[in-house]
Amino acid sequence: MVSKGFLERLLQLAYDEDLGAAGDITTMALVPEHLLGEGELMAKEALVFSGVEVFSMAFSHMDARVEVEMLAFDGQACASGACLARIKGPMRALLTAERTALNLVQRTSGMATFAARVRAAIEGTKLRVVDTRKTSPGLRALSKQAVLHGGLQNHRFGLFDGVLIKDNHLAALNGSIQEAVLRARQATHGLLKIEVEVSHVEGLKEAIAAGADVVMLDNMGDEEIERAVAIAAGRVLLEVSGQVSLERLFRLATLGVDWVSMGALTHSARAVDLSLNFRPMVRGT
Amino acid sequence: MVSKGFLERLLQLAYDEDLGAAGDITTMALVPEHLLGEGELMAKEALVFSGVEVFSMAFSHMDARVEVEMLAFDGQACASGACLARIKGPMRALLTAERTALNLVQRTSGMATFAARVRAAIEGTKLRVVDTRKTSPGLRALSKQAVLHGGLQNHRFGLFDGVLIKDNHLAALNGSIQEAVLRARQATHGLLKIEVEVSHVEGLKEAIAAGADVVMLDNMGDEEIERAVAIAAGRVLLEVSGQVSLERLFRLATLGVDWVSMGALTHSARAVDLSLNFRPMVRGT
Amino acid sequence: MVSKGFLERLLQLAYDEDLGAAGDITTMALVPEHLLGEGELMAKEALVFSGVEVFSMAFSHMDARVEVEMLAFDGQACASGACLARIKGPMRALLTAERTALNLVQRTSGMATFAARVRAAIEGTKLRVVDTRKTSPGLRALSKQAVLHGGLQNHRFGLFDGVLIKDNHLAALNGSIQEAVLRARQATHGLLKIEVEVSHVEGLKEAIAAGADVVMLDNMGDEEIERAVAIAAGRVLLEVSGQVSLERLFRLATLGVDWVSMGALTHSARAVDLSLNFRPMVRGT
Amino acid sequence: MVSKGFLERLLQLAYDEDLGAAGDITTMALVPEHLLGEGELMAKEALVFSGVEVFSMAFSHMDARVEVEMLAFDGQACASGACLARIKGPMRALLTAERTALNLVQRTSGMATFAARVRAAIEGTKLRVVDTRKTSPGLRALSKQAVLHGGLQNHRFGLFDGVLIKDNHLAALNGSIQEAVLRARQATHGLLKIEVEVSHVEGLKEAIAAGADVVMLDNMGDEEIERAVAIAAGRVLLEVSGQVSLERLFRLATLGVDWVSMGALTHSARAVDLSLNFRPMVRGT
Amino acid sequence: MVSKGFLERLLQLAYDEDLGAAGDITTMALVPEHLLGEGELMAKEALVFSGVEVFSMAFSHMDARVEVEMLAFDGQACASGACLARIKGPMRALLTAERTALNLVQRTSGMATFAARVRAAIEGTKLRVVDTRKTSPGLRALSKQAVLHGGLQNHRFGLFDGVLIKDNHLAALNGSIQEAVLRARQATHGLLKIEVEVSHVEGLKEAIAAGADVVMLDNMGDEEIERAVAIAAGRVLLEVSGQVSLERLFRLATLGVDWVSMGALTHSARAVDLSLNFRPMVRGT
Amino acid sequence: MVSKGFLERLLQLAYDEDLGAAGDITTMALVPEHLLGEGELMAKEALVFSGVEVFSMAFSHMDARVEVEMLAFDGQACASGACLARIKGPMRALLTAERTALNLVQRTSGMATFAARVRAAIEGTKLRVVDTRKTSPGLRALSKQAVLHGGLQNHRFGLFDGVLIKDNHLAALNGSIQEAVLRARQATHGLLKIEVEVSHVEGLKEAIAAGADVVMLDNMGDEEIERAVAIAAGRVLLEVSGQVSLERLFRLATLGVDWVSMGALTHSARAVDLSLNFRPMVRGT
Repeated sequence: MVSKGFLERLLQLAYDEDLGAAGDITTMALVPEHLLGEGELMAKEALVFSGVEVFSMAFSHMDARVEVEMLAFDGQACASGACLARIKGPMRALLTAERTALNLVQRTSGMATFAARVRAAIEGTKLRVVDTRKTSPGLRALSKQAVLHGGLQNHRFGLFDGVLIKDNHLAALNGSIQEAVLRARQATHGLLKIEVEVSHVEGLKEAIAAGADVVMLDNMGDEEIERAVAIAAGRVLLEVSGQVSLERLFRLATLGVDWVSMGALTHSARAVDLSLNFRPMVRGT
Repeated sequence: MVSKGFLERLLQLAYDEDLGAAGDITTMALVPEHLLGEGELMAKEALVFSGVEVFSMAFSHMDARVEVEMLAFDGQACASGACLARIKGPMRALLTAERTALNLVQRTSGMATFAARVRAAIEGTKLRVVDTRKTSPGLRALSKQAVLHGGLQNHRFGLFDGVLIKDNHLAALNGSIQEAVLRARQATHGLLKIEVEVSHVEGLKEAIAAGADVVMLDNMGDEEIERAVAIAAGRVLLEVSGQVSLERLFRLATLGVDWVSMGALTHSARAVDLSLNFRPMVRGT
Repeated sequence: MVSKGFLERLLQLAYDEDLGAAGDITTMALVPEHLLGEGELMAKEALVFSGVEVFSMAFSHMDARVEVEMLAFDGQACASGACLARIKGPMRALLTAERTALNLVQRTSGMATFAARVRAAIEGTKLRVVDTRKTSPGLRALSKQAVLHGGLQNHRFGLFDGVLIKDNHLAALNGSIQEAVLRARQATHGLLKIEVEVSHVEGLKEAIAAGADVVMLDNMGDEEIERAVAIAAGRVLLEVSGQVSLERLFRLATLGVDWVSMGALTHSARAVDLSLNFRPMVRGT
Repeated sequence: MVSKGFLERLLQLAYDEDLGAAGDITTMALVPEHLLGEGELMAKEALVFSGVEVFSMAFSHMDARVEVEMLAFDGQACASGACLARIKGPMRALLTAERTALNLVQRTSGMATFAARVRAAIEGTKLRVVDTRKTSPGLRALSKQAVLHGGLQNHRFGLFDGVLIKDNHLAALNGSIQEAVLRARQATHGLLKIEVEVSHVEGLKEAIAAGADVVMLDNMGDEEIERAVAIAAGRVLLEVSGQVSLERLFRLATLGVDWVSMGALTHSARAVDLSLNFRPMVRGT
Repeated sequence: MVSKGFLERLLQLAYDEDLGAAGDITTMALVPEHLLGEGELMAKEALVFSGVEVFSMAFSHMDARVEVEMLAFDGQACASGACLARIKGPMRALLTAERTALNLVQRTSGMATFAARVRAAIEGTKLRVVDTRKTSPGLRALSKQAVLHGGLQNHRFGLFDGVLIKDNHLAALNGSIQEAVLRARQATHGLLKIEVEVSHVEGLKEAIAAGADVVMLDNMGDEEIERAVAIAAGRVLLEVSGQVSLERLFRLATLGVDWVSMGALTHSARAVDLSLNFRPMVRGT
Repeated sequence: MVSKGFLERLLQLAYDEDLGAAGDITTMALVPEHLLGEGELMAKEALVFSGVEVFSMAFSHMDARVEVEMLAFDGQACASGACLARIKGPMRALLTAERTALNLVQRTSGMATFAARVRAAIEGTKLRVVDTRKTSPGLRALSKQAVLHGGLQNHRFGLFDGVLIKDNHLAALNGSIQEAVLRARQATHGLLKIEVEVSHVEGLKEAIAAGADVVMLDNMGDEEIERAVAIAAGRVLLEVSGQVSLERLFRLATLGVDWVSMGALTHSARAVDLSLNFRPMVRGT
């Protein structure tokens, strides 16, 4: 359940850019106002579905009378050719909302499908693979949710719900990790852990001494990561970030790090192929 | 120049999801309010840049005192390692806006870069390769602009500025292209051409007879397209849509069709790798 | 079907200016919260009605329980004294929405009524009389729709769905129509025709040579228009603009021009006289 | 000084309907981004100007760099051919804002001009001629201000700043004016006078007895008004409403009523003819 | 009935700050999507309730399926331990809306309860005790309504529905009350009374001479107020403002002033103690 | 630095309710448009100031030309009679914004002042006293900031940045703390600690076993808290909530709990007394 207010704003923006004040001129010219229609959302390739709520809202935002019956649930693996949803309602609304609805769930299902592939690659390990904030503007919540639907976990949602101290922050404090962790602990509330990004094991030692809860090992090679795990010895959680391919994941799992973050989960997942076809409703159905 | 009102709404949405009411808690805890900073936007790979306006707005939306000096212009091919922009202003604003600014221009430049590659593939032909409405919700205008920056052309912007009669519309009129074109001509204004989607050459003949201006040949093979070009004989513009790979483009150009539309331009372009690094400003710079 | 999002914004603006945060203080003081009422929308003069959707929305925006049964349809010619709609629901909502609902449909029906009178004046000719962008801010879509309801056609909706090259644009290009049409063709999508405004037949010739689709003859006398029609010889569509009275329309039709645009359709149509009367609902009705 | 927040919403609505997300495609295609322009707002007929603030805001809303120098002030009588304002700034913004700016001030100046004509008709009398709530949705404040600029006065702004008890309200209270005035006095704050609408002198007597401050004589003939004035004898203010022509005003003034309200001031004032012409700016100006 | 548009904006703001785009993460993690719940709003102390409408809207804004059955009405005195409302619906919505709903009605009922205590203190007198504009930003309408529910009256709602001339205004006119009242009478509409703030009886005399309707005696002692009442002799309404304690009210009533305004009614009323407890719904209830 | 977008929404809401579309009618009638004014914000009692940013924004939101020079900084203890800020700019804007600006900083400074008093009561102890979510709707961020300015700390900002498992959540899971902590750990991101509310030491034991990070002891007496501290033995952080008076705080500090949360910090802090006086600006200042 993503915040409805944000979804409404996203949908309103999407429809405003697609419809303007003039609307869907082809449909208004050709389709009678009271014609009812029905149709199906079909998978054109194997996929993991994500987007039950936003798919329904895309239609009901256009016309509250549209009824969407979802056959796929969030996180479900669907075969190519599967029918994912049945939609019926005023034909005009169906045709006008079609592309916007597809633009959304093709992307969210694409992310869930990619996440599921990553999930399979680490099956059996204790590694936690998480997303990043590298999402398409306006789609943060839908993207993070899709990663969950694909079987992986999230990193912090935004800048407001997790402390992550990076190089740029340290530069503003003359580089003192000690000072940075202290200040962050004082200024932020007590339910937040504090993570520090380091690029060398020296930084890791300093972060542990400063009382960090989590340390992000940025762009380190496997060997250096191995040393880091030994140094940390369980006193902090270790996250690996940067240059993470599907192939490297399993190796990282064996090294004993706790999390790996992958920007690609949300910025490079390919949209899946879906189709929507509508026809005038036959009376009695 | 994309509509400022829409860009502001997109940025507000992006910042609301990244900041909430609580804001960038790490930066507020660690970076002094009056510290000034500066930094550069760097290309980490060869790319065609797109996003001059939105990149600047992403920072000025956060704090009007941030100054952005663009070194790259829209549509410019930039080498890996090139400095694309210099930014300076309040350090807090720089750090808080960093990811949102990157999330935008990595995507827009990714689309421009892909478009430029397509453009190169059709160099010397008269083929017009155009985009579709398969854009990320909220990013329509930025995406369409990026396609132009990459050297290709746009199809209609939305449902309001072009008549495109599809199967679904025809189904609502018992399949009569004649009737559909007539109604569309009557109901829409005179500066709009009328395009009809057909999947067989029979439909093409009917569309020509009905007075369509443009006919979209949907998912046809090369042979059928060749027949279509012969039938049309210049009386209508012909657009090819569906299953268009980079490799097939050149062949399509030789067949004599006028446009080819590619959804991939906006839904499958890979984000390019860019980086932003900031440091406290040294007095006197 | 006008874009619902825009109508909602217009209604919200109208109610915000009429109600503020304090609301309808007279009604709240005097009318019991649970009292139901009913009433009729009556024509106080002969008119062509326009505004079915916005009239209903004006009430349902105030209170979703109000039911509006329209007796008149859009485009219908109604006699003085005709009952156009029956409304029932919470009395407070009826009284509070009354003036806003009337302010809207008195204006839209006024435009449809004027358009119908123009339509009658050109009956039997092939002339297309179209509106302009000279609409009351916020009422563009309702106004354009009213013109259709009155039996005429629309020109472009806004600046986004038609290319119209005017003097001011040419001035920026050193006056070259050739260059202007070329650039417009390149930068805009292929479903848009290109119109050029000219004030002399020389300009018309240049526009034809440049490949314009439509030429607007601005403020020309009948004689010069006659020459223009001869020069064009069907190669471009011709629009007449400026100093168009009802009387001159028929003459223009005989001259052979294709369209005439009239700003008066939306900026000078007189509001029609309508009334709304409400009474407490009698049980059992 | 009209509420800036409301003007911004009105302008945003106006530009959204005129520009959509796609923008002014002609201007973007033809006018170089950095070209500066200048021009004048000219009166094409004699008029009383109204709209200094909104005219400037229409341009600055589009681009903050546009400078508007007003030569006419609100309420000024201007001759045909007068230059009312000089505008300069980025040419694109000038051309894109032109029609919206004109759509506003042609209407507001039309209302001020009409009001000034009414004002002249009652010169020398003590009659107060006031407007009504019959304004174009979204333009309430601008319309009311225009009436002031024309030299007349306002009635209440909306439903929130004046108590006006009408037939419909009385019907909900079984017709008792006594009860209605009492309740209104109790429920509303003490800086508001209470006005009662009556259609017969019997109602007037009842309203006076009930302690009303103002009585509106609805649709009464001159003779009945004369009797009403005698009955009131200065105990309440008297407003005349309904069937008020310019010709009847002077007669009403001599009858001794205090106010006359005219819906026509805002719903039937003709837009005045104004023009805006822009040219590329010559360096050194 | 407070303006729904404003309440919706207030609720949206409240939920946006409490939920952001990430939502109620605890509830989403722990409570099944389809679980239904029910619960009661209980008074934990004696109070006068205010907030029927906003309490219901707080839940329906979150999820339209929540049903709220109010057992207390606005203005009702409730004993400690009383059940004020029963709520049922999707458990997630109940838990997520709980705090926001409580934050609102604890405050509004606190104001109504305080007002009722003031009301009791002046029982039997003709004194009108009114509120001020010293309300929590965003809660003006709810606060004013609560004062009514507690049995007192309102002063003007905002700056738009009452003329109140203060020291600062007079300073801008060189201190002339005469001039100020004249200008206000001319520029504002005729249903508004004019109030002048004075701090000495000399000002009172001047205000009466100028034709003010109401005079506010600012920060005067009882003796000076007594002189003011004698001077006014019923020609103007007198309002007392400043240093008004519950104890002083009765004395002020006997002095013969008309109104007393108390900022404390809205800025210093203590929030009342309420509780909401929810449990999974037992089938069959 | 609170999120600007939220502050703007709050200010817009506050001004919309105070001004409506009609505006500050007294000021518009009496104060010349170009008159400049100046004034001071004065403390009428000893206080700790909070609200530098929002105080300035309240004026600049009204008119960008207003200049505010703050003499007090956030968190500063100010004596009665101290001058806190100097303001100058267009007189109309100063008068129109006055009450809204005061309504905000009187409340925020009231909270900071109360927090400072609490801070003094625990001086020398290691106890962390934190706020709750019991804030006035729309004022969450300003209230939380005020608590920091008063020298205390914050609890979680909203429902999105901290996991707090309450009775109601457990009821939905058949009461299993074990299960609840597990699910929360899985569904939320790794930078969030997990807090569990318990009302008995049995619950505390279960929460420790389940791996909670923080346990809230709800409404426990001192003796039971003492036992809880002994049981916890540093394995979890302990928060005390409920029935916390200023007097009890010191005792709680000695018991060894880590945090105490006080709703009163934001829901029962008394507004401080501030005044704003403006005068026409004397030239040369």
